[in-house]
Amino acid sequence: MKKAVILLSGGLDSTTCLAYAQQQGFACYALSFDYGQKHKHELVAAQRIAAHYRAPHQIVQLGIGNLGASALTAAELAVPDHDGSVAIPITYVPARNTVFLAIALGWAEILDAHDIFIGVSAVDYSGYPDCRPEYIAAFARMAELATKAGVEGNPLRIHTPLITLSKSATIALGLSLGVDYASTVSCYRLSDDGLACGTCSSCVLRHNGFTEAGIIDPTHYEGVACY
Amino acid sequence: MKKAVILLSGGLDSTTCLAYAQQQGFACYALSFDYGQKHKHELVAAQRIAAHYRAPHQIVQLGIGNLGASALTAAELAVPDHDGSVAIPITYVPARNTVFLAIALGWAEILDAHDIFIGVSAVDYSGYPDCRPEYIAAFARMAELATKAGVEGNPLRIHTPLITLSKSATIALGLSLGVDYASTVSCYRLSDDGLACGTCSSCVLRHNGFTEAGIIDPTHYEGVACY
Repeated sequence: MKKAVILLSGGLDSTTCLAYAQQQGFACYALSFDYGQKHKHELVAAQRIAAHYRAPHQIVQLGIGNLGASALTAAELAVPDHDGSVAIPITYVPARNTVFLAIALGWAEILDAHDIFIGVSAVDYSGYPDCRPEYIAAFARMAELATKAGVEGNPLRIHTPLITLSKSATIALGLSLGVDYASTVSCYRLSDDGLACGTCSSCVLRHNGFTEAGIIDPTHYEGVACY
Repeated sequence: MKKAVILLSGGLDSTTCLAYAQQQGFACYALSFDYGQKHKHELVAAQRIAAHYRAPHQIVQLGIGNLGASALTAAELAVPDHDGSVAIPITYVPARNTVFLAIALGWAEILDAHDIFIGVSAVDYSGYPDCRPEYIAAFARMAELATKAGVEGNPLRIHTPLITLSKSATIALGLSLGVDYASTVSCYRLSDDGLACGTCSSCVLRHNGFTEAGIIDPTHYEGVACY
């Protein structure tokens, strides 16, 4: 079986990606990051999901939170409610996907894997520049020149199975693969009781996806009256 | 003054790079990594050097050592003596420069800096694929698409002032800039007393550089009889 490294945040997209990669016949190695995010519960979800799929799982400590500037990591910046804006949001962590893919590239090289899966989508797009196909293609070109395998003519493939999918299409794909979305966590402000806020960007995009897919949203929200 | 992020390992090359960037008029921000390297003394040197140049300094924790496979991080792999081979050596840390540059890219974005300096050299080359000009160019192209600044038409420049320089030419450049090489550390196997082994690849390349430059090597080696 060919090995693949799967970037797994514990959210809806990356879990769908893991299920998809496994269905495609890859032996999946799940990679998560503790980068100082306030929503650490996503790492607990990632552990649970990796275990469910029997994927070896690494959580890499990554001290980029100290560099500051994102509402996902800086204590002094609150995660805002979803405002429908298409501008790059305050929750943007500078160069995050580049850092995550770079470390995935290193692990792939160690594992002798030549495939990485990342659950970015250029649709239902949150305004992050590093979610677009032209960025992924440029990363792949760089990776060809960066590593021993690339230099020896065995370059890395970066798979983005969700890149053209809306959130609702991703959910439909995941359900066809048997994904249990109740076990995934998207909220940036989950309560200690495991309830999603229902109003941050990540919650709103997720809930709209279920609504558009015509599927009952299995997420547990604070105050059921939200939806 | 324009800001620049300088990748600073505390070794000969990165210190020369910092001195060069400062002489070019940049306000320098030094970035080092604790990536599980056994030669932690290089971080002490980096702190000393950043302080000397009055550069704000961040050491980012980076748990890639757990992923294994390099003699620089894995306890079970010994750093070998220099053997003159041009093959990719066991001290290669997979995708290291890609990870370091990715984090530098993130910090640059936070600082509103558009310049990164990295002291790679394609001459006196240790066999690492991520030290070559075509790799650096591909990283810069990827960075243009990865970030808010790049997307908004203010891309990042990656400066590699040493890329065409031999070790001896780097030393000559550094001396012309007033670099105190006695304060830099290159050895992969420094003793607790701060003495360099004199026989690892990093020591051998460094010492040969001083010899070729016709400069007395200020490094303190274990057993002066080495040279």
